[in-house]
Amino acid sequence: MRIELINTGSELMLGRVLNTHQQWLCRQFADRGYTVNRQVAVDDSGPAIEGAVREALARAELIVVTGGLGPTSDDRTRDLIAALLGRTLHEDPSVVAHIDGFFKSRKRLMPASTRIQAMVPEGAQVLMNANGTAPGLVIEPNVGGSSPCKLLVMLPGPPRELRPMFTNQAIPILAERFPLPAPFVCRTLKTTGMGESQVEEKVAGPLKHLTDAGMDLGYCARIGEVDVRFVGRGADAQKQVNAAESIVRELLGSLVFAADDEQLEETIVRLLTARKQTLALAESCTGGAIGNRITNVPGASAVFLAGLITYSNEAKQQFLGVRAETLAAHGAVSEETAKEMAEGARRKTGADFAISVTGIAGPGGGTPEKPVGTVWIGIASANGATAHRRFNAFDRETFKNVTSQHALDLLRRQILGIV
Amino acid sequence: MRIELINTGSELMLGRVLNTHQQWLCRQFADRGYTVNRQVAVDDSGPAIEGAVREALARAELIVVTGGLGPTSDDRTRDLIAALLGRTLHEDPSVVAHIDGFFKSRKRLMPASTRIQAMVPEGAQVLMNANGTAPGLVIEPNVGGSSPCKLLVMLPGPPRELRPMFTNQAIPILAERFPLPAPFVCRTLKTTGMGESQVEEKVAGPLKHLTDAGMDLGYCARIGEVDVRFVGRGADAQKQVNAAESIVRELLGSLVFAADDEQLEETIVRLLTARKQTLALAESCTGGAIGNRITNVPGASAVFLAGLITYSNEAKQQFLGVRAETLAAHGAVSEETAKEMAEGARRKTGADFAISVTGIAGPGGGTPEKPVGTVWIGIASANGATAHRRFNAFDRETFKNVTSQHALDLLRRQILGIV
Repeated sequence: MRIELINTGSELMLGRVLNTHQQWLCRQFADRGYTVNRQVAVDDSGPAIEGAVREALARAELIVVTGGLGPTSDDRTRDLIAALLGRTLHEDPSVVAHIDGFFKSRKRLMPASTRIQAMVPEGAQVLMNANGTAPGLVIEPNVGGSSPCKLLVMLPGPPRELRPMFTNQAIPILAERFPLPAPFVCRTLKTTGMGESQVEEKVAGPLKHLTDAGMDLGYCARIGEVDVRFVGRGADAQKQVNAAESIVRELLGSLVFAADDEQLEETIVRLLTARKQTLALAESCTGGAIGNRITNVPGASAVFLAGLITYSNEAKQQFLGVRAETLAAHGAVSEETAKEMAEGARRKTGADFAISVTGIAGPGGGTPEKPVGTVWIGIASANGATAHRRFNAFDRETFKNVTSQHALDLLRRQILGIV
Repeated sequence: MRIELINTGSELMLGRVLNTHQQWLCRQFADRGYTVNRQVAVDDSGPAIEGAVREALARAELIVVTGGLGPTSDDRTRDLIAALLGRTLHEDPSVVAHIDGFFKSRKRLMPASTRIQAMVPEGAQVLMNANGTAPGLVIEPNVGGSSPCKLLVMLPGPPRELRPMFTNQAIPILAERFPLPAPFVCRTLKTTGMGESQVEEKVAGPLKHLTDAGMDLGYCARIGEVDVRFVGRGADAQKQVNAAESIVRELLGSLVFAADDEQLEETIVRLLTARKQTLALAESCTGGAIGNRITNVPGASAVFLAGLITYSNEAKQQFLGVRAETLAAHGAVSEETAKEMAEGARRKTGADFAISVTGIAGPGGGTPEKPVGTVWIGIASANGATAHRRFNAFDRETFKNVTSQHALDLLRRQILGIV
């Protein structure tokens, strides 16, 4: 089955906006056993949209078009596609009522211009927009001739409108209309602490009997993480994927920190919550990046007490009790300072665990002995404090991301008692 | 002039990776007076890449293809395009030497597999990769017939390799080969504190004589920001854009915080550095997001002393000196607590300015009086402390982004003495 995505919007072609629909929609399809074959972005102009849709109609069984369903003059997707498919538009009273209700619930008058969004092409199915006014539309193009296209779906451009509409309304329609030929099972194990090629070296051989039997095996390297992904199809899909998961968990042990979509910070909050334990942070060079990640997790307040971003030496002494002699003898970026920072954060907050980070993010501040990228990560717990050196010579933001990943993984190991 | 981008990579079609090339490359072109007309992403397979390139050859004068130049078996772009254009490949000794030097400088042996990256299609110009091994390639397709294509550029997939190669090596070639028909001037003013439609209402009328004379005027709404963008072409381009900038700065005054690509956190660090003033933060619900933004700016250490992420009430008392009575009488999310947090951060660190944030990020924790999204932002300076209520009812991460934007803008106004 061939699937094509068309993202419309002049702002995309001017580089003013990042296109996140591509990844999100491709991922939704992939996780359900479908593969998108092509994605295209074009500007808002009539010929550009028409051209892209016309080409897709000649190739794809399913076409998803995003954007251009709003009320302004550059929202032309609905009209253009209706014209291309020879459908007249009529006003749908249920959509008018929905738009009216949307504004009423916000105690605002319905602007006259928004009413155009209630125009629905003949024969189209309406997907009401739970988070906005423009409805989605599902059309059977019925263009006949050589077109393989069975369904064309139009979705509104804003991600917070598109995403729930796709998941809750479009997916059930698509699953019914395009049933998978066989069972499909997808599982991702998330690992940290080993490079992509090392992971592959460890697991590819022991999984060979499963990949030979048709199971897909994939790797994806991210910042400080490597995903291992199994895809099974057919009667043995679940059995194959389960077997692969067991083998990889056995081989990689504690390098596997989570499955599927869980982020490392979610793992941390989950582990601490289950153990009723608490956390404090002492960040220097990461400047709040670790606290930001932890507090992105709903429920973090149950386990996260405080973070001290001690950028200056004075702050390290004042808020964490790092000793002046330690700073003078070893410098701010040192094993000793990292340990005292973690110990101080734990002592001052009474948390079960504290992690500290002190390093040189760059571009300035490096020396021959401590070049840019040098970082010490400290961990304090009831068992005392240790510190670990890492060398993350990247641009400033990547340095912060990689270092926060290292710190959270050291914490995970400490929580789980893995040495 | 028609430009098309082709991004290759099966990981893109599986939604494992976010495609940032589209926005970045489109923006690079737009800022130099060129517009990308279409962007396509396809998987790594031969037919998919061939099909996309063949179609682009029939339409575009300039084609940019990204990805698939590496050493592994799924890197097929170079071979496929060479075959499509009827070019033989030969090993380029200067590329071999570059790859060898790349590994030598990292004290590693050159893996035999990487040598394939030195295979260059006949007649192609090589762009050496300053941050990796795969070179970029520039080819005049010369396919004759009806193809308008004058240049096809292949770039490596990793952003840290692609970006400097495009800016430093590809752009000069493109600018020479495709000179703009007339002068081009682009300027963006970044504003905060007013919605997109309000900004448009204020400035569109007074700029009408310039847009009537051919200057482009565009708006782009981001989280807590609206960009106003002027594009002039032709002999009067610079004069038009200068006039527009003066008019908008006059009309919007202090709502304009920066020009072109400067982020609000960069504005803050720039202003504080110039004034030799310092900053401390007291974050509750934003959990380090503001500290993270400030410390993303190189040179932040000159102005940023410390951030106290006081998630628990105990931490607010211990590290910021918020009084227990205040918390008991008004709650953690209140004007009084926000003021005491900011005052405490300023007093404890000796910073010139301190900002504080306390609110309810959700999804839990809301009450009828203080629903999810409620936030108080405090500011302390030599002039005393004030606090400002905002209501940012979004998902958790958007809440943190919008709130950090509000806090940084209040700080900017305080630094500049704007009431």
